[in-house]
Amino acid sequence: MAKHYEMWEKLGLDLEKHDQFLNPVPELFTEIFIKQDNRPEGMDYYDFVVGDIHGVRVKELVAEKDKGNPVISSFCAFVPDELIIAAGGASIGLCAGAQFPIPRAELELPNDICPLIKSSVGFKLERVCPYFEVSDFVVGETTCDGKKKAWEFLNEHISTYVMELPNTKSASGHQLWQSEIERFKLEIEERSGRKITTEKLAEAIKLVNKKRSVLERLYNTRKANPAPISGRDTLLITQLAFFDDPARFIEKTEKLCEELEARIANKQGVVNSEAPRILIAGTPMPLPSWKLHSIIESNGGVVVCEETCTGTRYFESKVAENGQNLAEQLVNLSERAMNINCACFTPNEARVDDILRLANEYNVDGVIYYNLQFCQTYNMEYNKVADALKKADIPVTQIESDFSENDSGQLNTRIQAFLEML
Amino acid sequence: MAKHYEMWEKLGLDLEKHDQFLNPVPELFTEIFIKQDNRPEGMDYYDFVVGDIHGVRVKELVAEKDKGNPVISSFCAFVPDELIIAAGGASIGLCAGAQFPIPRAELELPNDICPLIKSSVGFKLERVCPYFEVSDFVVGETTCDGKKKAWEFLNEHISTYVMELPNTKSASGHQLWQSEIERFKLEIEERSGRKITTEKLAEAIKLVNKKRSVLERLYNTRKANPAPISGRDTLLITQLAFFDDPARFIEKTEKLCEELEARIANKQGVVNSEAPRILIAGTPMPLPSWKLHSIIESNGGVVVCEETCTGTRYFESKVAENGQNLAEQLVNLSERAMNINCACFTPNEARVDDILRLANEYNVDGVIYYNLQFCQTYNMEYNKVADALKKADIPVTQIESDFSENDSGQLNTRIQAFLEML
Repeated sequence: MAKHYEMWEKLGLDLEKHDQFLNPVPELFTEIFIKQDNRPEGMDYYDFVVGDIHGVRVKELVAEKDKGNPVISSFCAFVPDELIIAAGGASIGLCAGAQFPIPRAELELPNDICPLIKSSVGFKLERVCPYFEVSDFVVGETTCDGKKKAWEFLNEHISTYVMELPNTKSASGHQLWQSEIERFKLEIEERSGRKITTEKLAEAIKLVNKKRSVLERLYNTRKANPAPISGRDTLLITQLAFFDDPARFIEKTEKLCEELEARIANKQGVVNSEAPRILIAGTPMPLPSWKLHSIIESNGGVVVCEETCTGTRYFESKVAENGQNLAEQLVNLSERAMNINCACFTPNEARVDDILRLANEYNVDGVIYYNLQFCQTYNMEYNKVADALKKADIPVTQIESDFSENDSGQLNTRIQAFLEML
Repeated sequence: MAKHYEMWEKLGLDLEKHDQFLNPVPELFTEIFIKQDNRPEGMDYYDFVVGDIHGVRVKELVAEKDKGNPVISSFCAFVPDELIIAAGGASIGLCAGAQFPIPRAELELPNDICPLIKSSVGFKLERVCPYFEVSDFVVGETTCDGKKKAWEFLNEHISTYVMELPNTKSASGHQLWQSEIERFKLEIEERSGRKITTEKLAEAIKLVNKKRSVLERLYNTRKANPAPISGRDTLLITQLAFFDDPARFIEKTEKLCEELEARIANKQGVVNSEAPRILIAGTPMPLPSWKLHSIIESNGGVVVCEETCTGTRYFESKVAENGQNLAEQLVNLSERAMNINCACFTPNEARVDDILRLANEYNVDGVIYYNLQFCQTYNMEYNKVADALKKADIPVTQIESDFSENDSGQLNTRIQAFLEML
């Protein structure tokens, strides 16, 4: 793990705590990722990115800031990166998947809220995330009760702008979101002093769509049996998609896809074709949350798809590229959110259809419904999803967890039993 | 407890379970309410209503339905009763404060969601609430994650119409709520076949405002020291305000207020003037949730105000009566919600001001912040409220609870200690 103390100090990180946080990562990463058999060569790039996760990319962002370009961070697939990029800025998905800063957050927030929220707030309070420190401001959204109230608290520590996502996809709900997209555009322009033009926005829409398309291409390779890439490697790539420079990420991932497609042509898999194929459905797994994938795959299963915000919900819905002027482009941007089937919406019947479709497309043997503790919206959708899967004769089990290792033994036993049953 | 088996059977109640639910109520009610010393005479009426809680009022609603008038139920102070009344209908706040039906609900819903939601869903599943059964439909709202997803489930058992409350009070949020008010008006008209006219709506607005005003008058009497009425009696009256015929409720409560004002003139209290005066701030206490008041007052304290949905948030915000036509009246109705400082909104700074103002107006010695388990929005506002109270030198403690008696012993110890400290 490369050290960049000078830059980190300038950014205001707590160097001692930051070392405590980063030091165990290489060993963990080696154990979970590097030791895998038969990894695609193209994973080298992502291994390098993780190996310098708080270095090279942060350096790039500092350089962008020095040029006067905005750096804007967020936590949710609904936030339109395109507007940030069109203003010449960088859009970063913030750290939120580690146990390390949670005890600090629990001094300020209730224990019984989602670990993702506690983790993200904790990263700021502990000053161990350079992406937070390099951000001009962060963008929250009203996707759930916990986040909605967490932004009020976070705003006391870093400027936090909140986008109001509606609770329904009704005409009025959509109208509200459209006005929120317009308001966000003005906010970026005002804060950055940069004008968002039709041309710049058209380019940004194409770029971000291309990033989504390459992820889709990557996911499509997992439909093959045997799967040419492990679930944990794909998860890692999706997690890094939130951080990396989009153009470079597209290039590197396209190269990887070529390798994977060649593997498929040669019927070469990362596991054998008997490995139980698992779809994970539910809540997101932000970097560095690798526990569930690691347990499933070390027990002989292979994760072939994630119906999560760090999976299909991140890339399946694209922005129409036919906007001829800013007004049309903003409408197109707003429509993307209306095509994402997040449990924050009511009703959300189409999510059940998504899961059945993905289970079929990826030819899965079973579904693990993953729920971050205290995430009420996804938890409450479980029964409906489970009923539909049972009707379709697809085995399903629910796993509720957090980012700690406390439940690893118990999860291992449960997942082992589930895989044996398939 | 009067029995109305014939009517209950016709409504489809589970008679055996319903008896199990109602049978313990008289003893509990006697213990908590009837045995109080020095009660106002005017409490006779409310005692009578509780004594026949599933009888006389249900009979009235059945008669309304027989006349073709709609009976529409809801769970939240945001739902505009005025529109229901203007259509010649009755608006009922549903049962949601009992432990009894929760184990049944937990077979279908996660355990770790708010007991109010589990209770209300359980009442329907167990068929022990005649108000559910007499309702043409129920009205939910998107005030929190748990409720939002619960309506999807409840709708499988009784027609459930959902109003989308925004997450903010921004112009766009207000616009959304205004369109939801309009949509609700059309829904009532379509379902009931009744037209809502300007005249009828003006009458309904006046009537419901009058109900709110009489509750305000009742609350004002509690500002006196010694308080002329106990906290639990006032809580009971507010709880019944959700069920009772509004005109009759106004008449009876006005009469009670006269008695209480005479008491104040005579410096006559229900307790002595040394009793610690408590403000409860937080989540609602629907019928028959009396635990916290009962513990506080049996330990020598007196609850003088509730900053809850079964307290000041229910009546403080009124509807402007100056609407000259339906369009204006609907705008006025929508504005009421924007003046309620519920934790479902972000930001919600004005709630802190409300609590400081009430603590001052009611001259309280301490604040108990009451949080229903797993209610994330109110739980996450605690620290902000506590900081403001501490700055104002007002002692505060947080109590998290549910509708069971499991924690009564522990609560008793904690509350005793808090009262002794004041």
